[in-house]
This record gives sequence, C-alpha cells and structure tokens, in this order.
Amino acid sequence: MKTTVISVHTGSSRGVTDITAEAATFVAGLGDGLLNVFVPHATAGVAILETGAGSDQDLMDILDDLLPRVDQYRHRHGSPGHGADHVLPGIVAPSTVIPVLGGKLALGTWQSVVLVDPNADNADRRIRFSFVAG
Amino acid sequence: MKTTVISVHTGSSRGVTDITAEAATFVAGLGDGLLNVFVPHATAGVAILETGAGSDQDLMDILDDLLPRVDQYRHRHGSPGHGADHVLPGIVAPSTVIPVLGGKLALGTWQSVVLVDPNADNADRRIRFSFVAG
Amino acid sequence: MKTTVISVHTGSSRGVTDITAEAATFVAGLGDGLLNVFVPHATAGVAILETGAGSDQDLMDILDDLLPRVDQYRHRHGSPGHGADHVLPGIVAPSTVIPVLGGKLALGTWQSVVLVDPNADNADRRIRFSFVAG
Repeated sequence: MKTTVISVHTGSSRGVTDITAEAATFVAGLGDGLLNVFVPHATAGVAILETGAGSDQDLMDILDDLLPRVDQYRHRHGSPGHGADHVLPGIVAPSTVIPVLGGKLALGTWQSVVLVDPNADNADRRIRFSFVAG
Repeated sequence: MKTTVISVHTGSSRGVTDITAEAATFVAGLGDGLLNVFVPHATAGVAILETGAGSDQDLMDILDDLLPRVDQYRHRHGSPGHGADHVLPGIVAPSTVIPVLGGKLALGTWQSVVLVDPNADNADRRIRFSFVAG
Repeated sequence: MKTTVISVHTGSSRGVTDITAEAATFVAGLGDGLLNVFVPHATAGVAILETGAGSDQDLMDILDDLLPRVDQYRHRHGSPGHGADHVLPGIVAPSTVIPVLGGKLALGTWQSVVLVDPNADNADRRIRFSFVAG
C-alpha cells in the first residue's frame, strides 16, 4: 500500500487547516482507487468542506456550541475546556475516504479536505494518507 | 476501479433521500469488497439510518437544532440560514464505506443508505459509488 | 476479502465499548491495507477516541445533550427517548476506516476504536471487520 505521513504546522491557533493540496500531491500518478485520510491524534478530526467563504470558521463556532469549553468533562488533563477536544473525534471523525480517478481526487467543485483541530496546545499535527488501488 | 455517478432528484424539499436500492444495483455481481459512497457537494452528507419509521425526519429536526438556520454564519452566499448547510458536512460527512459480500451490501436489517440534504435550492444531487475488491 | 463478524456483550448499560484489541487481533498478519469497521445496527455507531481518562463517558453525556432523550421524535417504537438512538448514526456513523501497516493498526498513541451504543435494550451487538490489501 502506498502510504505516507505528512506534518502540518497549526501553530497556536485553533481551527481548520486545508490539506487538499497535500492530498492531491500524494495521489498524483496513482491511477484509480480510494484514498484514506487518517489523523492519528485523539483531539482532532478530518472533514470535507468548502473553505475560503467562512464555513471553516462557522464549523469551529458550531463545534464550540455543541462541545462547550467549560468545566463539565470527566477528562481532567490540560485546561478545563480541553475535555471538549477529546470528545470532538466522536462528532468529527479522524478518518475519511475520497475516491481517486486517474491520479486526481474526485472532489466536488466546492469541496476541500481539512484538518479540524480545536486544540491550540499542539503546534504540529500528523496526517496519514493511504491509497488502495481499485 | 468500478465507479459511477448517479443523479438523485431531491426537488425543492429538504431532507433525507434513500439511495440503498441504487447502491445495491451498483454492487450487484461485484463479489467481495468495499463500497465507498461519496457526495461531491459542499452542502450535503451521507448517512446510514433506519428509514420509514420517522427517524429520517427526526435527524433533519435534530440537525436544525444543532445548526440553527439563523443569521449567525460568516458564509454569506444565499439565504441567511444557508450558512448552516455549509457546516453540515462537518457533522454528517459526505463519505462512507459499506462492506460488500457476494455482490450484496452487508447492511444490518434496519439500515438504509441515505443522502442528507438540508438545502432546498439544489433540485438535483450527484452521488459517486466506487468499489474496491478485497 | 478477509471479513468477520464479532459479537460484543454490552449488557444492559449504555455507553462506549473498546474494541481495539478485537480489531488488532483481526488484522494481525494481514500486511498492509485498510480495515473497515462496520456496525450493522441502526442504533449504534463507531468512533476513534481516547479511552480510560473519562472521554468515553464525556461523549455519551454530550450525545445526550445533542440528542435529548425526550418525547420529541417521530420514531415511536420502544421507550420515548429511544427515538434519539435512531438519530445517533447520523451523527456518529456506523462505519470507519483505519490504515493497517505490517498487520498492525496505524492508530495514534491515544486512539482506541470504540462501539458507541446509547441503547440499553440490546445486550449484544455485532461488528464486522473487513480488510482490503493495498
């Protein structure tokens, strides 16, 4: 299986990082098959969204509504709101699959692949791309 | 890879459209493998649910609670509530995988594959089926 | 395709059941490829989370906030709150994919694979593992 791990620098900000270009580079020349995008972290997820028109930040705002950053969590490591980060992968899963045709991602016109990372304490994140030919 | 795009007419209504029969037709005769169901739109998702007993509409109601159709979104194209439609794929992903055995979907008794489309402005939606043999 | 169905005894409790060890046993010796974990039930999902530090119960609490167990659902079988269980797979999908390298799950240090089962009425659940080589 062709597989690789990339590193994304998210710095100290919380939010959505577009990784479409990295995914496209990985599958270039690979023909037809399925791409798995997998985030090997317990406080991040992966999503397929429109970016560049505000929806990425809209998603983060909604996630803060759904997973309040208050002191309600059993998980007690880190700052109080950090418990929310550990629930996030239950809502925004850390794995998705994208069809690949002729070495190109078969995304819709307005779709981008993004890392969803609500956790400001991790400055760098890894993402694994894996390709299975069809 | 065997892959195809179907078109689903959702008209001007919002909601859940059952695409199990279309998926079953696609995999018929294909043996064992994994089916990827992928929605190449930025305002729709795919889910695996019981249909026919009200849960499809229950899901839409819950999504309207979680993603309020009010003027709170940065995304400013279309009507105010349309920003919610662009957040939806972060919660209901546009991609899923279903095991296929002997050319049949290995769904549970009460599971159906559905398109989740909160957007009344798109009368037609495309869905890509892709099959990788195991 | 190598595929199997395991049975998990969840008893009369609601919650998260760790199935990482079962998944690891299934892929042992299989080389490189993608593992699909699929729950053939209409009232359960699968997630990838940290377990053992409270986040599993935190997820269940959040899900009870997002999907209130009250009499608001069209789905009328079972107890009133049971309608929430049927919406759950729209939020926590019953399918995920995990990369496998050299017969080992390529999970992050803090990730576990879990069954998410809010339904106390089903004492036993089935989970299908399927592996496609890359």
